Amino acid sequence: MTAASMLFSCSMYVGVSNPKMASKASACCLLNRPLSCSSSKSISSCGMFGVSEKSKLLCRASALHVESVPSFSVGQKFQFDDVIEAQQFDRETLSAIFEVARSMENIRNNSSGSQMLKGYLMATLFYEPSTRTRLSFESAMKRLGGDVLTTENAREFSSASKGETLEDTIRTVEGYSDIIVLRHFESGAARRAAATANIPVINAGDGPGQHPSQALLDVYTIEREIGKLDGIKVGLVGDLANGRTVRSLAYLLAKYRDVKFYFVSPNVVKMKDDIKEYLTSKGVEWEESSDLLEVASKCDVVYQTRIQKERFGENINLYEEARGKYIVNKDVLKIEVEVDSDPRAAYFRQAKNGLYIRMALLKVLLLGW
Amino acid sequence: MTAASMLFSCSMYVGVSNPKMASKASACCLLNRPLSCSSSKSISSCGMFGVSEKSKLLCRASALHVESVPSFSVGQKFQFDDVIEAQQFDRETLSAIFEVARSMENIRNNSSGSQMLKGYLMATLFYEPSTRTRLSFESAMKRLGGDVLTTENAREFSSASKGETLEDTIRTVEGYSDIIVLRHFESGAARRAAATANIPVINAGDGPGQHPSQALLDVYTIEREIGKLDGIKVGLVGDLANGRTVRSLAYLLAKYRDVKFYFVSPNVVKMKDDIKEYLTSKGVEWEESSDLLEVASKCDVVYQTRIQKERFGENINLYEEARGKYIVNKDVLKIEVEVDSDPRAAYFRQAKNGLYIRMALLKVLLLGW
Amino acid sequence: MTAASMLFSCSMYVGVSNPKMASKASACCLLNRPLSCSSSKSISSCGMFGVSEKSKLLCRASALHVESVPSFSVGQKFQFDDVIEAQQFDRETLSAIFEVARSMENIRNNSSGSQMLKGYLMATLFYEPSTRTRLSFESAMKRLGGDVLTTENAREFSSASKGETLEDTIRTVEGYSDIIVLRHFESGAARRAAATANIPVINAGDGPGQHPSQALLDVYTIEREIGKLDGIKVGLVGDLANGRTVRSLAYLLAKYRDVKFYFVSPNVVKMKDDIKEYLTSKGVEWEESSDLLEVASKCDVVYQTRIQKERFGENINLYEEARGKYIVNKDVLKIEVEVDSDPRAAYFRQAKNGLYIRMALLKVLLLGW
Repeated sequence: MTAASMLFSCSMYVGVSNPKMASKASACCLLNRPLSCSSSKSISSCGMFGVSEKSKLLCRASALHVESVPSFSVGQKFQFDDVIEAQQFDRETLSAIFEVARSMENIRNNSSGSQMLKGYLMATLFYEPSTRTRLSFESAMKRLGGDVLTTENAREFSSASKGETLEDTIRTVEGYSDIIVLRHFESGAARRAAATANIPVINAGDGPGQHPSQALLDVYTIEREIGKLDGIKVGLVGDLANGRTVRSLAYLLAKYRDVKFYFVSPNVVKMKDDIKEYLTSKGVEWEESSDLLEVASKCDVVYQTRIQKERFGENINLYEEARGKYIVNKDVLKIEVEVDSDPRAAYFRQAKNGLYIRMALLKVLLLGW
Repeated sequence: MTAASMLFSCSMYVGVSNPKMASKASACCLLNRPLSCSSSKSISSCGMFGVSEKSKLLCRASALHVESVPSFSVGQKFQFDDVIEAQQFDRETLSAIFEVARSMENIRNNSSGSQMLKGYLMATLFYEPSTRTRLSFESAMKRLGGDVLTTENAREFSSASKGETLEDTIRTVEGYSDIIVLRHFESGAARRAAATANIPVINAGDGPGQHPSQALLDVYTIEREIGKLDGIKVGLVGDLANGRTVRSLAYLLAKYRDVKFYFVSPNVVKMKDDIKEYLTSKGVEWEESSDLLEVASKCDVVYQTRIQKERFGENINLYEEARGKYIVNKDVLKIEVEVDSDPRAAYFRQAKNGLYIRMALLKVLLLGW
Repeated sequence: MTAASMLFSCSMYVGVSNPKMASKASACCLLNRPLSCSSSKSISSCGMFGVSEKSKLLCRASALHVESVPSFSVGQKFQFDDVIEAQQFDRETLSAIFEVARSMENIRNNSSGSQMLKGYLMATLFYEPSTRTRLSFESAMKRLGGDVLTTENAREFSSASKGETLEDTIRTVEGYSDIIVLRHFESGAARRAAATANIPVINAGDGPGQHPSQALLDVYTIEREIGKLDGIKVGLVGDLANGRTVRSLAYLLAKYRDVKFYFVSPNVVKMKDDIKEYLTSKGVEWEESSDLLEVASKCDVVYQTRIQKERFGENINLYEEARGKYIVNKDVLKIEVEVDSDPRAAYFRQAKNGLYIRMALLKVLLLGW
């Protein structure tokens, strides 16, 4: 992987491990923010990658040794009414959701397609715009034969601007639809909506709070690329203090056996104690390091988050230093240039993985297992 | 009903009379503006409720004695090309529309659903945003198997900002769709659109003008909750001078027998003479009162509209006085606390009633009776 | 045609030549900008019309002598992956696309309709709002049984505002859909998107660049109205220096035999030399004229573009003079008053032609010939 190849990323980059390429491949890289080509700033933004020999083997194994999942009976009711936060799922449920997601990969855009959710209406109630997340959910619903009621910017365009409460809106919208996908700017909004609604609510991001389908998609992608979730070594690099993605990932991966975390970050944005204590309480190993190169050489997966200038306040020189130090660039990833000749392949996999996870969530919430 | 339970309202609150609860129930309450929980201001905004013994009986009867309607032959052409204002419908047509609306209640979101409007495209052309109304129409269309072309904010996003006339836009959009639902900021816009278009136009609100599907939905809800429209006593409370809702309601209910209106409002926003004269000319009784408690005790239905501060100009003290005087609160509605243990039930009924009315309008405009 | 009848125009006005009216008709008029009723300013904006005796005959012939097209085999792959600019099509391909467009005219909104594109998802990715173009594409997709993911304003509402590149967005969106319709504010954006995407991209306007479906629709409309494209005389009037429409039209019509152009414009916005040289190199005759009346009397088709005040800078008096001089009004078009008793008919034809062309493009890109 070159720096250039990373530029294609958006929200997740997998540098490797198309199963067919697995014998040549050795890295898995997830980015949780888009990188853009033109500015050197964004080159430092984020990245997840794996560079150990071990990951190479695991990638090769991915198509063969998918964890056998304890099945829920087909048609059995899904055990949750809503999807509000990643933590609500235990390991067994995650595995079952991933199994449903994998089955969604076979649904193609042929003349028949799936009509599994025909007659169902999903309302995408977005109080802040997020085209990517919205289109992913809407595509998921339509690929399953369902239909969609859309609000692109409920905050500006709706009664919200006239002082209507979220609860008021939810009660109205649930009269028109069968499931609500809510994006909101306030932490806790999804929980309030779910408490109000008599139909399922999926949290598609509530401010600094949760974005569970994104967290599930990160874990699902790691499993698809690495072939397992137990026993993996994960480097978390960059701004670890802020942002829901890194925290959700830590919570979710803590449900698996023998996961080890490496935290690499500037002092001002170090991983917070609550997560460290949570991991320790669950028997999950973690260590902090300032040596990105060494960490990268040990990990199966490196997950990098963007370091935001505004977190450094007046210490702009610390920011400049931090940026330079925690860039996942072609030196860190030097082995990968030959790995993924078409870096866009990773994008297709990532966007599709998000689609499959969302198809799976819609399916189990509306139809059960 | 407590003040708290009223807070759940949006645009219409029915405090009572789920048919299954009718023997215990005695009140019917419609709000034509959302109330929000947090501010005392909004508690005074609006409410429609019924508190007489009579309404109790009528509610109980609602599921049994629906007025038998003079039917139009199935398949017969609908007698209007467009739906522009509530007054265009006579009593017979209203009854027939309500009958179609009731039949829509059986259309469920099952795997088949209705395909009645399959192949039809509805364009929702909204020059001012109104998520609630838009989603209601779009849900209605999709529940009948039709599909939708959406503009969430045609004023900002379209050629309108380049000086294109409404007529130009209508002529273009009618080439793409089979029916147009228009929301506009100018009174009379819907009539102009209908004069231009060769396909049906539904007025979804044109500024201070009409919003006929809302007016139909109010009357339909009263009939569903109270069981009849003849012989009812209706209190109109709050700002009666402004706002299309109260005026439309007066016009529509005047088509029924032995309806009596009570107007309760501050002097500055009293019911205007044109409506009073219209009612008198139709032989409809009305009286003005300043005693909300007394009126509430006499009425089957109380419909409250929000008193807007800006109407009082510099006489802010009059506003404060008016607000306090015309609040429909738990004292006025003291009997209702036990009536509706789940105040949200009313919301489901209200939103669904709006949906059924809009499904009915789409059906008769596109397919006939 | 009266000035008043022109007011109904939007983007294209055909003043004549409903085949049933052809024996009485003699003019064909296309406007590439909407005219609005209320301001005298807009009366001068644009117009395409034909007034020669010849066109009368040609119009009459239109239903009979459509050019026989060299067919591509049904099911054969379309020779382009994307539709980026009008020039990419040779005459043979244009004829074949027009033939498909004509076949689309039979697809009606009946209970079955076409399900040709059932299961296909089109993403309309609009970085600048254009309700008209968007609804036309979305209607085309839905009339063929496909479905749509919509962004009304991707620039404001998406990650674009967070600095995500177009390429990033394309790679994500192609994971969710089967074809992308892109509207962008930068010239060349569509080409960049097509280079990135593994699914077809249609350029729905990229700033000052191309808008090929509009250009195809103009030519298709001329053929439908006049009955042929070879041997026609075309007046281009107004601002010929700016605007993609006039330039595209010149490029496309140059593919036909014995086409002659007349350019009528103020000096400051004369047709640029590159187009003149291109036409000359292709053996296409052209001449400049300042006499609109004389040109109108010679042409089969007059295409007028709006003269924009801002092009004249401080020479506002030149602007006023130019406006007055190049208005296509009832004096210029005096013969037409009786031609088209229902001027709206032309709108239906124009909007529908746009629809058919877009249906045809979606069909050939997704299913082949």
